[in-house]
Amino acid sequence: MKPINVGLIGIGTVGGGTWTVLNRNAEEITRRAGRPIRITAVADRDVELTKKITAGAARVTDDPFALVNDPEIDIIVELIGGYTVAKDVVMQSIANGKHVVTANKALLALHGTEIFTAAQEKGVMVAFEAAVAGGIPIIKALREGLTANRIEWAAGIINGTTNFILSEMRDKGLSFDDVLKEAQRLGYAEADPTFDIEGVDAAHKATLISAIAFGIPVQFDKAYIEGITKLEASDIKYAEQLGYRIKLLGIAKRRSNGVELRVHPTLIPAKRLLANVEGAMNAVMVKGDAVGTTLYYGKGAGAEPTASSVIADLVDVTRLATADAAHRVPHLAFQPDAMSTLPILPMSEVETGNYLRLRVEDRPGVLADVTRILADQGISIDAMLQREPAEGEGEADIIILTHVCKESCADTAIARIEALPAQKGKVKRIRLEELQ
Amino acid sequence: MKPINVGLIGIGTVGGGTWTVLNRNAEEITRRAGRPIRITAVADRDVELTKKITAGAARVTDDPFALVNDPEIDIIVELIGGYTVAKDVVMQSIANGKHVVTANKALLALHGTEIFTAAQEKGVMVAFEAAVAGGIPIIKALREGLTANRIEWAAGIINGTTNFILSEMRDKGLSFDDVLKEAQRLGYAEADPTFDIEGVDAAHKATLISAIAFGIPVQFDKAYIEGITKLEASDIKYAEQLGYRIKLLGIAKRRSNGVELRVHPTLIPAKRLLANVEGAMNAVMVKGDAVGTTLYYGKGAGAEPTASSVIADLVDVTRLATADAAHRVPHLAFQPDAMSTLPILPMSEVETGNYLRLRVEDRPGVLADVTRILADQGISIDAMLQREPAEGEGEADIIILTHVCKESCADTAIARIEALPAQKGKVKRIRLEELQ
Repeated sequence: MKPINVGLIGIGTVGGGTWTVLNRNAEEITRRAGRPIRITAVADRDVELTKKITAGAARVTDDPFALVNDPEIDIIVELIGGYTVAKDVVMQSIANGKHVVTANKALLALHGTEIFTAAQEKGVMVAFEAAVAGGIPIIKALREGLTANRIEWAAGIINGTTNFILSEMRDKGLSFDDVLKEAQRLGYAEADPTFDIEGVDAAHKATLISAIAFGIPVQFDKAYIEGITKLEASDIKYAEQLGYRIKLLGIAKRRSNGVELRVHPTLIPAKRLLANVEGAMNAVMVKGDAVGTTLYYGKGAGAEPTASSVIADLVDVTRLATADAAHRVPHLAFQPDAMSTLPILPMSEVETGNYLRLRVEDRPGVLADVTRILADQGISIDAMLQREPAEGEGEADIIILTHVCKESCADTAIARIEALPAQKGKVKRIRLEELQ
Repeated sequence: MKPINVGLIGIGTVGGGTWTVLNRNAEEITRRAGRPIRITAVADRDVELTKKITAGAARVTDDPFALVNDPEIDIIVELIGGYTVAKDVVMQSIANGKHVVTANKALLALHGTEIFTAAQEKGVMVAFEAAVAGGIPIIKALREGLTANRIEWAAGIINGTTNFILSEMRDKGLSFDDVLKEAQRLGYAEADPTFDIEGVDAAHKATLISAIAFGIPVQFDKAYIEGITKLEASDIKYAEQLGYRIKLLGIAKRRSNGVELRVHPTLIPAKRLLANVEGAMNAVMVKGDAVGTTLYYGKGAGAEPTASSVIADLVDVTRLATADAAHRVPHLAFQPDAMSTLPILPMSEVETGNYLRLRVEDRPGVLADVTRILADQGISIDAMLQREPAEGEGEADIIILTHVCKESCADTAIARIEALPAQKGKVKRIRLEELQ
């Protein structure tokens, strides 16, 4: 059968991996897809390097729109990232009737509604498996593998940089700053790591997960985002003593009156598989009402793992390129005329367990005050750990794990505890999920 | 849009779960599939019970062929199991131009080639996500999620009964027989547990995995099958001391000259996620050349988890029911005219590490004899553990972990060790996989 022609825009890490894998496994991929998938043109700013990589096997240009506007190209693979040129590339490709494969979580989390609406109207596909959790086929699992289910929640380690940092902090008892430097040296963290360590990258991905899990529009602006920069080695140690590990989770949870969409450091039971996902690996847990709990694990980044998802999308798109739109999986899992209007809940409405670290003067009555404040807010205590003050110190660390309560109640309780004369400074709060 | 009509054959555990979930989540499933999926008729031997379950919402009969031959029915869901009536039902449904969804691993592992060939010729789909690992969308991951990859191997805990038994043996230090009785009492093992504990069920599933991973025909008759009935609590304990756990794995591995297809108890490193899959849960690891190692975890059996996969297949089939065959995913992942001729290797050609438990008289020179025999076969030793004889006993347990070697070399070495006068009885051998 006639090959399908792909225009690759951006041949950096993921683009290079896509070029390599598509060529190395060409025969096997063709045997699956039913027709050859050929990158016939590549656009990249670095024309010389691109020519070296492609070695004459594809047309090379520095102008992405030369590909976008080329009638011979069937599918555009957008791997340049960002919101500016990438958005123009994607929108113009759709307008030209081309299918799009992209790994651009930021673009889709912010402009997904506009992009998917345009694609729907034009009858083309925009595929984005590579945008979430690298090589793990989590989009496919959620959109297709679990269609029988009312999804209750999804919670994932979806940023490898932060998971590497947290794993190292726990393993070696080091501070965040020290581990970050090490991660940058090893290439696990970028020179400017803000998007990763502040949770923004994870929030982009959690936004996409929330959309396909519940059939709601992408609403990145409503996500609650808290990174790992304020985590202390002592919190990781205390959590461990209580049987928990701290992971940066992206969480999308269905509640009766809306959807929780949040990224924050989270205590999870050490015995859960998810707690044992170490280093730069990714994993997503999904709870469906029929299937129960499932988990998907693999490499969340890197040239070839991410290329694996880009190419899986290329095979899917190739199969359905000429099919009627009704034969295709809807972009956000639900038919566009059957999306949900469930709102994203404000953080004050969110419900979680809590880890509270207090530093209090070691004198009678303090614990009675604290437990009274919690009880006043209807917050019940699940576990408590007290570190006796060292010789000469007059202050003790008290760690309290609470059962699930509303965020606003926890906020009020924390403010009242901080107002106690015995409490020194801020209460450290980390949210807790049992993931059952 | 007009509903698609489903005929459900067999409303036992999985059939009942399918009925329940499809009704409970009807609205959500319709919003995904784009049209309602309705079970309009049910065939089951127990007509009275079936009428009670369906409560007038579907036609009820005891004759499966009344559904198979009903021109109003678009899709047949076969959930009666076995090879006899089930095979006739599936083949006749195909002949009548109906799509089929089935959870019948035994039928497909034995007669898959005949069934898929007939389906291909007739232009209908035979979907079988529920046949492997219950609710885990592993067929979808392998057939669609990892299409970019040359799959190197897949290894899974794909039988919940045996994993429950092994978990209990390890946790409580009990014997196989005692735990089996407990498992039967709790409903984790059937009254006749042969298919589970002898590894036959896992081999059916491993056969299907091998076919879609490598694009080879289903060849259940060539699978090596060894169950868990001869495992002793002491082996589980020794393995633990060496940093390993014993799991019944179904393994499909690509080698340059063929495919390994085997089910047997296997030592795996305790730190692997797969080693920490406990109780009746299932998980499958897949290694692809691009994506690296991925893992898929969830419930491998039960009414609603398995129904989750049956219904996911129904949604897929509904979407593509009227599509051209070229738009569909090939049954065995590769186009039928592009299947691989890679043979299944005989067990003598298989390569694994080994756990060898010797019971030897405690006298000088024994270890020298044993290590000489291993060296003669080119087998190198990775670790050794010696349990000193108890007071009054003259025999010691020696545990040897070997590096990877050919099965035939291990067989020869074991025979020669057993011929040593110092060795008492048989050498206990359990294969070992690092899963890296």
